[in-house]
Amino acid sequence: GMDGAPSPPSPAGLSAYVVVSQLLGLTLLATTGAWLGRYRGGVAWHSPLQFNVHPLCMVLGMVFLQGDALLVYRVFRHEAKRSTKALHALLHGLALLIALVGIVAVFEFHRTKGIPDMYSLHSWCGMAAFVLYLLQWLLGCGFFLLPGASFSLRGRYKPQHVFFGLALFVLSIAVCLLGITEMLLFNIRDSYSHFVSEGVLANTLGVLLVAFGLVVGYVLTRDDWKRPPLAEELALSMDFKTLTEGESPGGGS
Amino acid sequence: GMDGAPSPPSPAGLSAYVVVSQLLGLTLLATTGAWLGRYRGGVAWHSPLQFNVHPLCMVLGMVFLQGDALLVYRVFRHEAKRSTKALHALLHGLALLIALVGIVAVFEFHRTKGIPDMYSLHSWCGMAAFVLYLLQWLLGCGFFLLPGASFSLRGRYKPQHVFFGLALFVLSIAVCLLGITEMLLFNIRDSYSHFVSEGVLANTLGVLLVAFGLVVGYVLTRDDWKRPPLAEELALSMDFKTLTEGESPGGGS
Repeated sequence: GMDGAPSPPSPAGLSAYVVVSQLLGLTLLATTGAWLGRYRGGVAWHSPLQFNVHPLCMVLGMVFLQGDALLVYRVFRHEAKRSTKALHALLHGLALLIALVGIVAVFEFHRTKGIPDMYSLHSWCGMAAFVLYLLQWLLGCGFFLLPGASFSLRGRYKPQHVFFGLALFVLSIAVCLLGITEMLLFNIRDSYSHFVSEGVLANTLGVLLVAFGLVVGYVLTRDDWKRPPLAEELALSMDFKTLTEGESPGGGS
Repeated sequence: GMDGAPSPPSPAGLSAYVVVSQLLGLTLLATTGAWLGRYRGGVAWHSPLQFNVHPLCMVLGMVFLQGDALLVYRVFRHEAKRSTKALHALLHGLALLIALVGIVAVFEFHRTKGIPDMYSLHSWCGMAAFVLYLLQWLLGCGFFLLPGASFSLRGRYKPQHVFFGLALFVLSIAVCLLGITEMLLFNIRDSYSHFVSEGVLANTLGVLLVAFGLVVGYVLTRDDWKRPPLAEELALSMDFKTLTEGESPGGGS
């Protein structure tokens, strides 16, 4: 049996993809910072620069941290499930907090400027993504971290949690692309079509966001890169089967 | 054995989701038509209305038809693989043709108006989506329709084909959202923030596009809704194993 054997190495390729995802993620953040710093006057809270807190927080929270939270089950393949779960919840919680700061920044900016809220497609999709992400996090904590939910209830909710998790990550990236387009058409509407450097830089940020989504999505959906159950988890699930179905742990498959 | 047994019915729920996806798809097309007809003067080729051919063709080709082409393996679960494959390739081919018309429309419109091409994030992501979609179609025809590719080569390419197929569909929807935002900020920049009806209608189209993507994505990724191999396909794959690995068709599981 596998009991007591050393952890098998990660599948070939997985580590390379994870490294690429992290390089892309850091490049995303640097490119966002360069855009806001070089062309938009930088970032500050109580000032006309308060708006710029919004794109920075959203890329950091809703894209980079959300993406990394999704990757933890692939990266920490042989750690105890409970610690990996806690890290997954923690990273998503941090992402939500940072996104909340970014949302407060744009609402406060609108109020000082007298600009209406929530009229654009970006704001509709963005608010939907944030509220559903918060809901997903609360449901995830309720089902998988609190002790109340039964083994079979967890099993039935898990595929929904996984699908909506990836869908919300993808939607968050799409919302960032909408935000980039809005910012460019508000700020450099007339020069955008002349390929000015701010436009090219912001377009590049958009392409990097798509690339980050593709790499993370590829790692998450590859069947042979899914986290294998540990020996003790298999044993637990067999004990469970024995209790509920009267099966012999040694029989079957 | 299952040989000669009548086809099992589709899984519960699948048909309902497919019906909802088609209702959403038709609503998408109607909403696009209503936007262009009521607020943008309608659609025509040799006229200032030529631009409007672009959104109509892209929603029809890159979203509705591309989405339906992805669904054929779920809908026609018990037809011969070869006919389902041909329909899949045909619908994607039709989607590509219609998208090409939509792309020509916007390039011609730009030329008559003296507007530069390919400067926006929408155009960068959109052109990438179209070119990769064409490439994916050519690779798909080469690997799966032409007789040249071996059984094992097809098996190795298939997961890549499936992943990139879904990724390109999602990217296409994101590009449509970018296009909606561009059109609104070019046409109703000053009234958009006052919740004028054109803005609300176009935002609603964006939300419908996201909903269509979610429903199609859910149907495609649910494990228990995947197309089961037919009895004769299983037999074929066993014959193949026998030939190449010397396994007995009756052995193993």
